[in-house]
Amino acid sequence: MNKLDYVIRQIARTNKKNFENYVVSRIWHALNSSDIKFMTQQYVRRKESYALTDMYFPQLALHVEIDEPHHQRQIANDEIRDSEVIDATAHQIKRIPIPKDIDELNKLIDQVIAEIKERKKELLHSKQFEAWDIDKEFNPSYYRNKGYLDVHDNPAFRRIVDAANCLGNQAKAYQRAWFKSKMYEGHYLWFPKLYKNNQWDNRISEDGETIFEKPNAVEDVATHYKKMIALSEKRIVFARVVDNLGFILYHFVGVFETDEERSSPNNGMVYRRVATRIDIKR
Amino acid sequence: MNKLDYVIRQIARTNKKNFENYVVSRIWHALNSSDIKFMTQQYVRRKESYALTDMYFPQLALHVEIDEPHHQRQIANDEIRDSEVIDATAHQIKRIPIPKDIDELNKLIDQVIAEIKERKKELLHSKQFEAWDIDKEFNPSYYRNKGYLDVHDNPAFRRIVDAANCLGNQAKAYQRAWFKSKMYEGHYLWFPKLYKNNQWDNRISEDGETIFEKPNAVEDVATHYKKMIALSEKRIVFARVVDNLGFILYHFVGVFETDEERSSPNNGMVYRRVATRIDIKR
Repeated sequence: MNKLDYVIRQIARTNKKNFENYVVSRIWHALNSSDIKFMTQQYVRRKESYALTDMYFPQLALHVEIDEPHHQRQIANDEIRDSEVIDATAHQIKRIPIPKDIDELNKLIDQVIAEIKERKKELLHSKQFEAWDIDKEFNPSYYRNKGYLDVHDNPAFRRIVDAANCLGNQAKAYQRAWFKSKMYEGHYLWFPKLYKNNQWDNRISEDGETIFEKPNAVEDVATHYKKMIALSEKRIVFARVVDNLGFILYHFVGVFETDEERSSPNNGMVYRRVATRIDIKR
Repeated sequence: MNKLDYVIRQIARTNKKNFENYVVSRIWHALNSSDIKFMTQQYVRRKESYALTDMYFPQLALHVEIDEPHHQRQIANDEIRDSEVIDATAHQIKRIPIPKDIDELNKLIDQVIAEIKERKKELLHSKQFEAWDIDKEFNPSYYRNKGYLDVHDNPAFRRIVDAANCLGNQAKAYQRAWFKSKMYEGHYLWFPKLYKNNQWDNRISEDGETIFEKPNAVEDVATHYKKMIALSEKRIVFARVVDNLGFILYHFVGVFETDEERSSPNNGMVYRRVATRIDIKR
């Protein structure tokens, strides 16, 4: 997928929502810079609730929201199931109301465009702006150069092997979603679906701090508990999600350890987060 | 309908065609002037064929066409049936190909935007540019001030009464689509559907010079012929069409007279155009 395909697909997501299409396209065309990435209708987490954001600029940690009347944005937990959710707790939010007059609307959008340009300028000035490179963005070498994975940067990879090799494993492909880390002794790499699926009734808490894991088959719950509770290893966890264009992503959600007190042979395993950041050793 | 509604609806017509949506929105936002009107996916007549134009600027007599591969644009006669068709024989056409690279595409669009701005500037300079006024555009007083109706300006009215009163009749409403002109003796005003409909099998030739009229009921054809052939009156004709947003328009197509030689009791009436322009007397 090249940038043109990507941008067209992102804008196409707004097509049934005509004000969104108008605002999003005006902002994109006015920024007039193909080194700025954006997502439309992106699920985000804010403090303890989920929301859908109309236009999200990951490099700028900035969201644009279109305040249409009767526009419900609170998202139920089960609605997002397998979707990528961006941690937006520390992000800027710009709101655009929809007035009746087109010149008035254009003026309101143009104010926000000026603010977005200003934000980019600040980041450029402090050398914190990285141009969007669509060929490199899910590339392990990008994070290896960076030296760490941090939940707040929303790091993600397209394939299990990319995430694993970024953290020092050396394989051509992985069939499994659960294996030992080469870089960190006493750590597993884990790539679960953190929602109810064919085999597992998994869940991650809204604050991202707790993972619940249980086989669907009742007869397997105690067996799985016994096997897992015996392990002392920590878990470097990449949740398998689907991004807003429908592609699979493995999304770093932190390092977890077994919560022995809350785990049980009846209710399954509970893991608590012990780190939101992991260094990538050379 | 205000300008914002109008523009949103026009852009929404491109929503399933993502490149069109991209190009149309970029042009509209870059022109950044709500005194310019545009239509999307407008049927037009060029010499002797029909086509669909991606973005049409009536004030500038200018069309933008997006050259996507496998984009068939020739329109069959029966496809346009009741649709408004703009006479575009003398209009400018700007073509935009779709390259693979987004920066390249933006550059190509921006060249066309510069040409559109240049065209507006020329018309402003020669005092031929009239700002888009959505409240006045189908208003009879606009054409009364202008002093004439000319097919090449594509004049149209929302209601029969507007067209009739523009030409000097004085009524609050008309139930019929066929009545005498007060301004021009020996002339009728006629507001037909020029396509096969419940009652009539009517048709206008592609060059706009000939109208064919025949009742659907075979037993009525000769009777209608007898009645019409006895009349010596000319016809000031406004074709009933549906515009690209689905609203009814009465579209001036010229002044016609009976073609006695081609009319017959078997095949119905034929009228030939004798004028493409009619003065509006004070």
